[in-house]
Amino acid sequence: MAAPLSVPPSTSDVSASVVDAVRHSLDGRWSWLRDEIRGREDFGDLRVEPGIDTETHRQRVWEMLGQLAADGHAVHGFPTAVGGRGDIGGSVVSFEMLAFADLSLQVKSGVQWGLFGGAIQALGSPEQQARYLPSVMDLSLPGCFGMTETGHGSDVQSVHTTATYDPATGEFVIDTPTESAKKDYIGNAARDGRMAVVFVQLWSAPAGEVPARHGVHAVLVPLRDEAGTVLPGVEITDDGHKEGLNGVDNGRLAFHGVRVPRENLLDRYGSVAADGTYSSSIDSENRRFFTMLGALVRGRISVSGSAVGAAQLALTIALRYAEARRQFAAPGGDGEIVVLDYLAHQRKLLPLLARTYALRFAQNELVEMLHDIQTEREAGGSVDENRQRELESRAAGIKALSTWNATEVIQVCREACGGQGYLSENRLGTLRTDTDVFTTFEGDNTVLLQLVAKGLISGYADDFGNLDTLGTIRFVADQVLDTVAERTSLHQLAERLRGAAAGDDEELLDASWQIKLLDDREQHTLDGLVRRLRPARGKGVSPDKAFAIFNRAQDHLLHSARAHLDGLVLDAFNRACEAQTDPTARQLMRSVCDLFALSVVEQDKGWFLEHGRISAARSKAVTSEINKLCHTLRPHARTLIDAFGIPESWIGAPIATGAETRRQDEAIAHTASQRG
Amino acid sequence: MAAPLSVPPSTSDVSASVVDAVRHSLDGRWSWLRDEIRGREDFGDLRVEPGIDTETHRQRVWEMLGQLAADGHAVHGFPTAVGGRGDIGGSVVSFEMLAFADLSLQVKSGVQWGLFGGAIQALGSPEQQARYLPSVMDLSLPGCFGMTETGHGSDVQSVHTTATYDPATGEFVIDTPTESAKKDYIGNAARDGRMAVVFVQLWSAPAGEVPARHGVHAVLVPLRDEAGTVLPGVEITDDGHKEGLNGVDNGRLAFHGVRVPRENLLDRYGSVAADGTYSSSIDSENRRFFTMLGALVRGRISVSGSAVGAAQLALTIALRYAEARRQFAAPGGDGEIVVLDYLAHQRKLLPLLARTYALRFAQNELVEMLHDIQTEREAGGSVDENRQRELESRAAGIKALSTWNATEVIQVCREACGGQGYLSENRLGTLRTDTDVFTTFEGDNTVLLQLVAKGLISGYADDFGNLDTLGTIRFVADQVLDTVAERTSLHQLAERLRGAAAGDDEELLDASWQIKLLDDREQHTLDGLVRRLRPARGKGVSPDKAFAIFNRAQDHLLHSARAHLDGLVLDAFNRACEAQTDPTARQLMRSVCDLFALSVVEQDKGWFLEHGRISAARSKAVTSEINKLCHTLRPHARTLIDAFGIPESWIGAPIATGAETRRQDEAIAHTASQRG
Repeated sequence: MAAPLSVPPSTSDVSASVVDAVRHSLDGRWSWLRDEIRGREDFGDLRVEPGIDTETHRQRVWEMLGQLAADGHAVHGFPTAVGGRGDIGGSVVSFEMLAFADLSLQVKSGVQWGLFGGAIQALGSPEQQARYLPSVMDLSLPGCFGMTETGHGSDVQSVHTTATYDPATGEFVIDTPTESAKKDYIGNAARDGRMAVVFVQLWSAPAGEVPARHGVHAVLVPLRDEAGTVLPGVEITDDGHKEGLNGVDNGRLAFHGVRVPRENLLDRYGSVAADGTYSSSIDSENRRFFTMLGALVRGRISVSGSAVGAAQLALTIALRYAEARRQFAAPGGDGEIVVLDYLAHQRKLLPLLARTYALRFAQNELVEMLHDIQTEREAGGSVDENRQRELESRAAGIKALSTWNATEVIQVCREACGGQGYLSENRLGTLRTDTDVFTTFEGDNTVLLQLVAKGLISGYADDFGNLDTLGTIRFVADQVLDTVAERTSLHQLAERLRGAAAGDDEELLDASWQIKLLDDREQHTLDGLVRRLRPARGKGVSPDKAFAIFNRAQDHLLHSARAHLDGLVLDAFNRACEAQTDPTARQLMRSVCDLFALSVVEQDKGWFLEHGRISAARSKAVTSEINKLCHTLRPHARTLIDAFGIPESWIGAPIATGAETRRQDEAIAHTASQRG
Repeated sequence: MAAPLSVPPSTSDVSASVVDAVRHSLDGRWSWLRDEIRGREDFGDLRVEPGIDTETHRQRVWEMLGQLAADGHAVHGFPTAVGGRGDIGGSVVSFEMLAFADLSLQVKSGVQWGLFGGAIQALGSPEQQARYLPSVMDLSLPGCFGMTETGHGSDVQSVHTTATYDPATGEFVIDTPTESAKKDYIGNAARDGRMAVVFVQLWSAPAGEVPARHGVHAVLVPLRDEAGTVLPGVEITDDGHKEGLNGVDNGRLAFHGVRVPRENLLDRYGSVAADGTYSSSIDSENRRFFTMLGALVRGRISVSGSAVGAAQLALTIALRYAEARRQFAAPGGDGEIVVLDYLAHQRKLLPLLARTYALRFAQNELVEMLHDIQTEREAGGSVDENRQRELESRAAGIKALSTWNATEVIQVCREACGGQGYLSENRLGTLRTDTDVFTTFEGDNTVLLQLVAKGLISGYADDFGNLDTLGTIRFVADQVLDTVAERTSLHQLAERLRGAAAGDDEELLDASWQIKLLDDREQHTLDGLVRRLRPARGKGVSPDKAFAIFNRAQDHLLHSARAHLDGLVLDAFNRACEAQTDPTARQLMRSVCDLFALSVVEQDKGWFLEHGRISAARSKAVTSEINKLCHTLRPHARTLIDAFGIPESWIGAPIATGAETRRQDEAIAHTASQRG
């Protein structure tokens, strides 16, 4: 079985079929779609040359977006009823593949189709979908997602923008009451957007009554006319230059008495009748808010996938260069030492490669879960609330891990490539700056980890998350003695994997030992957290005291979340290994999985030692085992990055595609001739 | 005692005199010069607006550099004989202060005056200095520092560019034999440079004899004529756009039979007579090379200072914002919680603030050491070789720590400021991308840490470092049983600081306990390293085996270097606390120092536990003590950043200078009015 033409050949001694087998694991359920997109050689041209001014950059990205629209790149996730493919998971995968092309283009497409179109799809009625989505898909209606405000990013429930219903005219009046209530960092706002989904506090009442607030809702508000002129009452300012993603035109939106017809309220979860009467299928305002947020979870999952893709690209570039670059004379021989032969260089890159593998598998499972749940719901099926909560919690957690991973991976890769890594032509700098915002947009990572931890404690109980700070603290504290979250099935998996492994003499490379170690850490940190939060229970505790108790345990809380997520990710990796049928590929993947698991242990070895989970001797053994694994995997580095299946023409970086290798070869020939 | 006008007032309850006292400690020996530069309000205007194209950017920086030259900013470090101030330390400090303005401008100035001018100063004769330095200082001769080659960055001793003496004409012929021998990443090369100091393998012999190689030397090679036209035989290509520092015109230089007069060899350490006879005051080629490199150590120290400055600026921006930004409703009260009141936010920023303090003090000591040694030598005094080696080792180590610290600090600050942190107007993105290359230029950090470790093992023995890879391995292995490096005086300091501290019951906040703990780690890791390298001793061991032994211990070696450097840095911080005479300031600094020391322990607690240096209970106590220190220091955050003394008009970032605070205040008023 030959590798597809567009995938570069492996240089290791492992056959191409192993590369294919590993790639098939990494590609997951949508491997057919990945292959379809890989076939598009022109993707490699969808990239903006660095060093141009902001306006030119924006124009180039706008044109490329039009090209994507014309090619039908947008159709995957939209309902078949409006001309889409109805493939939710496919939409995430196709978005993710754009990370290999240009990240400004990717994010711009995400704003248009994922956020703007996605909000209409998730929060709008079938009529609203039919009315708007075709022109969203073909880009004749460029739009914005107006959620974040200057003063409210993490705490979206507190947005200040208002939509007040005027029964006299049958319109909503949209207002931005303060500077900090401006919608901020809004993609497509500064230049191209014609319409925005604006998240507002909705006020309405039947004529004659005092308007009541119904919580956060989304309203479609036109911003510019066909000619691109900003409409009356709409104020748009440019967010200006950013660290990265300068092909995306972010801006601030303010509304001053802007009137839109009643039909512009996206009304799947709440609507206002002509007389001003509000109605909703969900009684609780809080629950309604979180249901709406939950329906938008795809955005977070898409960012996570993009982060994994960016890390894969960076590792591909850095590891190819590390196999070509030589420095310092080889002892006793001709030529110089290949830098990937240095343990220090392996130590920098290979554990990060292992973690990126692990996150890829976790991401794939997350996309499947999203797809299954949303497809089921779209088909009219009822989705278990706990599954939806679990999905949201995983999306939050995996997004945090993947985006921090991307930041670290790309940074380390940049440094590992030295001066070459700093040149824009080698892409690492642009990857770093473009993905940097991933750690704080679509949810600040630290806030997301807190969500995960709170979910663990509360077992995703129904009312959770629907409360203000104090309410949350009290609620969590109340839960802690009664319920603990449904655990992942790590225990059972550990038993299953035990199989042929050693009996009492637990070995570092025994998957079941690794799983149990992480599982135990999760359990223990969670139990400890519960004990620490207990004193915040009850109405008798003052608000200040309750907050202080909660705040003092914040680092513990974050650690619990990480412990849980590490287990989840390891779990996904183990399942991928189990599912691999090629024995050589499986063995290779097992070694990468071992490297990931032991790296997790090493990174937190202080905790494992403090809590008597490993002995000092075992802790040292973990470190030497990691070094051994680096040594073992080093000859397979090329196989492992080839399995990412990034087509040669998409890679772009000269240090990774031969130009730099040729220079090196020449240098070696020169050295040899000098010595000869 | 009032704070100078340009320094922003503190908002904490500590008086301005405490800010002044702490600032005086941080400013160090050149506080007068820092104050002089702080007086220049126009420094705040020396900044390039983001989002412009590369050519415009370069032109702007070129113009600003001319302004600096006209203002006499270059004079500090050059000899009085040529119109300079003869103040080596002052030159590093004045360079460093430019980090608060614009980093492209800073690096461009560093290329011109520090590297190009500095090389002529360090490697040229008094005649050569008199001939070139005045026009270097006034920028009428813009120049380059041509050391790094595409194929040789870390291993500079192996550069391939050649200068062959032709006795017939009395000229050197400069050649670039291969693509990888091109001088690369050379600042000032792509656009402005007229001349370059080019590092070459020097070949010469009296007429009639076969030319012999004399090792690496530096030759002045003209690049462009007065009109800016590239001279015949010189080939210049543009390195193009970079992740950052795009105001600096980096390029590649190649030479094809370029002839320069014999007088262009910078000949302080080696010269060629008219007939081609080579002579040098240093017989060993290797020793000569390292002596020349050692004379250039100021560049590395300047980068380190700049990194500390950049971290200070980032912390100033992020901590000011963290005191203004609010998110999520306060429990039981009006308004929202100030984000710096969250433990998670304190945990992100305050330990990094403490480390930046520590590195500032270590950097100050390093600059003093450089100044004293080089001033002594310039005055004709003889400098103890061990002191010079110690200086080089510290420069390598502190540079590695400071630049990695800057990368991490700025990244964390960016994330801590969320979307605002991503906007270029708030400077963090630009700080990140501009300083990113610091970790790999002027010496790759990983290679620098290896230098430090090898120096520790060899005790800076005379011949050390003058060997190829195998030679180094064997040499180090030979040393390991005989000598151990001269240690810093941590032990004595520990005794001195012990004073009033508890007797047997060691306390976490006892400075002498902290010092001994780090000192002991250094000792132990070094001893362990010695044992691991021992088998590489002797000629009987094959080169491959020797390399394998060395390579397997590489992570251990890097850990030893870090352990040593942590002690050195803590030492500097303790000395600064001791020297502080204001009791309130001293107490505050002690708490910051405690936070630094305990953070070092926490970060490596796995090691301390593995080696039985701390108990599990103590390890947990370290974590809670850090949390307590964060709580204690939180009200003083503003005092601690005010003490950096960055003038208000230099800070620039709207989120740090009130514009954003006003928005927030408005929002709070709005919330209150809604509730009221």
